Amino acid sequence: MTTEFTTRLTEAVVDSFDGTSDARLRELLASLTRHLHAFVRDTEPTMAEWERAIYFLTATGRACTDTRQEFVLLSDVLGVSMLVETINSDRGTADEVTESTVLGPFHMTESPVRALGANIDLVGDGEPCVVSGRVLSRDGTPLPGAALDVWQANPEGFYDVQQPDIQPAGNGRGLFTADGEGRFWFRTCVPSPYPIPTDGPVGDLLEATGRHPYRPAHIHFIASAEGHTPVTTHIFVAGSDHLDSDAVFAVKESLVKNFAVTDDPSLAAEFDITNPFRHARFDLVLDLDAEQP
Amino acid sequence: MTTEFTTRLTEAVVDSFDGTSDARLRELLASLTRHLHAFVRDTEPTMAEWERAIYFLTATGRACTDTRQEFVLLSDVLGVSMLVETINSDRGTADEVTESTVLGPFHMTESPVRALGANIDLVGDGEPCVVSGRVLSRDGTPLPGAALDVWQANPEGFYDVQQPDIQPAGNGRGLFTADGEGRFWFRTCVPSPYPIPTDGPVGDLLEATGRHPYRPAHIHFIASAEGHTPVTTHIFVAGSDHLDSDAVFAVKESLVKNFAVTDDPSLAAEFDITNPFRHARFDLVLDLDAEQP
Repeated sequence: MTTEFTTRLTEAVVDSFDGTSDARLRELLASLTRHLHAFVRDTEPTMAEWERAIYFLTATGRACTDTRQEFVLLSDVLGVSMLVETINSDRGTADEVTESTVLGPFHMTESPVRALGANIDLVGDGEPCVVSGRVLSRDGTPLPGAALDVWQANPEGFYDVQQPDIQPAGNGRGLFTADGEGRFWFRTCVPSPYPIPTDGPVGDLLEATGRHPYRPAHIHFIASAEGHTPVTTHIFVAGSDHLDSDAVFAVKESLVKNFAVTDDPSLAAEFDITNPFRHARFDLVLDLDAEQP
Repeated sequence: MTTEFTTRLTEAVVDSFDGTSDARLRELLASLTRHLHAFVRDTEPTMAEWERAIYFLTATGRACTDTRQEFVLLSDVLGVSMLVETINSDRGTADEVTESTVLGPFHMTESPVRALGANIDLVGDGEPCVVSGRVLSRDGTPLPGAALDVWQANPEGFYDVQQPDIQPAGNGRGLFTADGEGRFWFRTCVPSPYPIPTDGPVGDLLEATGRHPYRPAHIHFIASAEGHTPVTTHIFVAGSDHLDSDAVFAVKESLVKNFAVTDDPSLAAEFDITNPFRHARFDLVLDLDAEQP
């Protein structure tokens, strides 16, 4: 009898959205209702468990501020952000173009425009390195003038926006323009693994489930070029701790790059860096816009 | 390739909860992950849709205060509250005991203890009526001394706690004790349909989906007696508007009661009410505690 009632209940809720004028919203809410009810039916939460879930969601909302997005963090640690990102970047060509990964919560300020070769480590307290490569179209054609938005945390694992009183604004950030042959190069410090914020409800969830909050060392990129689909991605430092247990599930094998120790005095002079130095080299390969002929 | 990645992603998230010491929490999170990911896979939300969902959840959390629970309201309009309530009250005997329905957000204050026959309509601005019946055990045995917590909105559709400056505290509320034969009776006014709060994100959702916010006229009850499982329920006024489209899906047929116009001078005198009067009569039937022999 209860089963019969609950089945009718689910259909009644789905039907209640029949009058939604936006067909896509109607589709999303119907699917949400079915999946949410299936979850409740499968797990049969007690009233106390339901109240605990309401409390958790409320606390997550209350933890959000202008500079902190705890619901994005929740989406991240449940793998939902990565799932949505991956579904949207699927152009059936993941072996030919650079794979995407999550944007993350720290792309919240404009990166300063910098000249190729500039150092984005404004403090200079990390291990110096060079990052270089080319932006290419899917067929290997270089993309001159491609834009490269770059951001990373400092060696202690904090972004400039998290430490406005300690780090200069724009530390670890740069907006670069590829040269006439699609090449880019800049200096920075080798990034470190760092924990996502743990002082909110999401931190409590990780604690209760015995999960560590760390992300492996990485640098964020958004690469874009005319006539091409932009890619939002990271490069991860090969050998970094937590590569196999990223708290937000963002690691894809193709994005793990060697920051090789390089002993090459003439290359060091070219990059204006002390020899020997760490050097990450990789190309960013963009897909053509779907609309392009 | 994306499909392969996303399948592995779901398993990776589920596996990340393997270290959860609380086995029930582990089970809930594993199931939540699978259902949430299935929803995302089925609907393939764009990044903009995902951002809109994050914004909606954040706004819902921010709308919560000490006297308002917008996440409970969201759970209500998605039928989740009713589903959880029904699953928990399923004792396989729904045809023999009084069915349950949602608690709702307005049982937030203690009901004043009142004598049998008292009028819970302290203002006297509605259509007077009598509510009477018996509290019984499943086999029909009366339950003397059973407790009956009752609450309802005023004729304009507001609970006392929503209008602390207009209604006297305890208006529409009463805590009654059944007499030696399990009987209860009290006076009130016939309740009216009313809208759930629409000035928050849940109201926006109803608006966007063309759903009305009304609940059919009802009176809330929690009935309890020694050795029995308490029941949280409503009675609905037969013939009320919105009985077939309750905004929170709480109507069960067995809970719809006739508030019959009664022309009986001696009964009116007994209840201390003007003849003729509206009279709702029904029994509340409780199940034995599972632990009882």
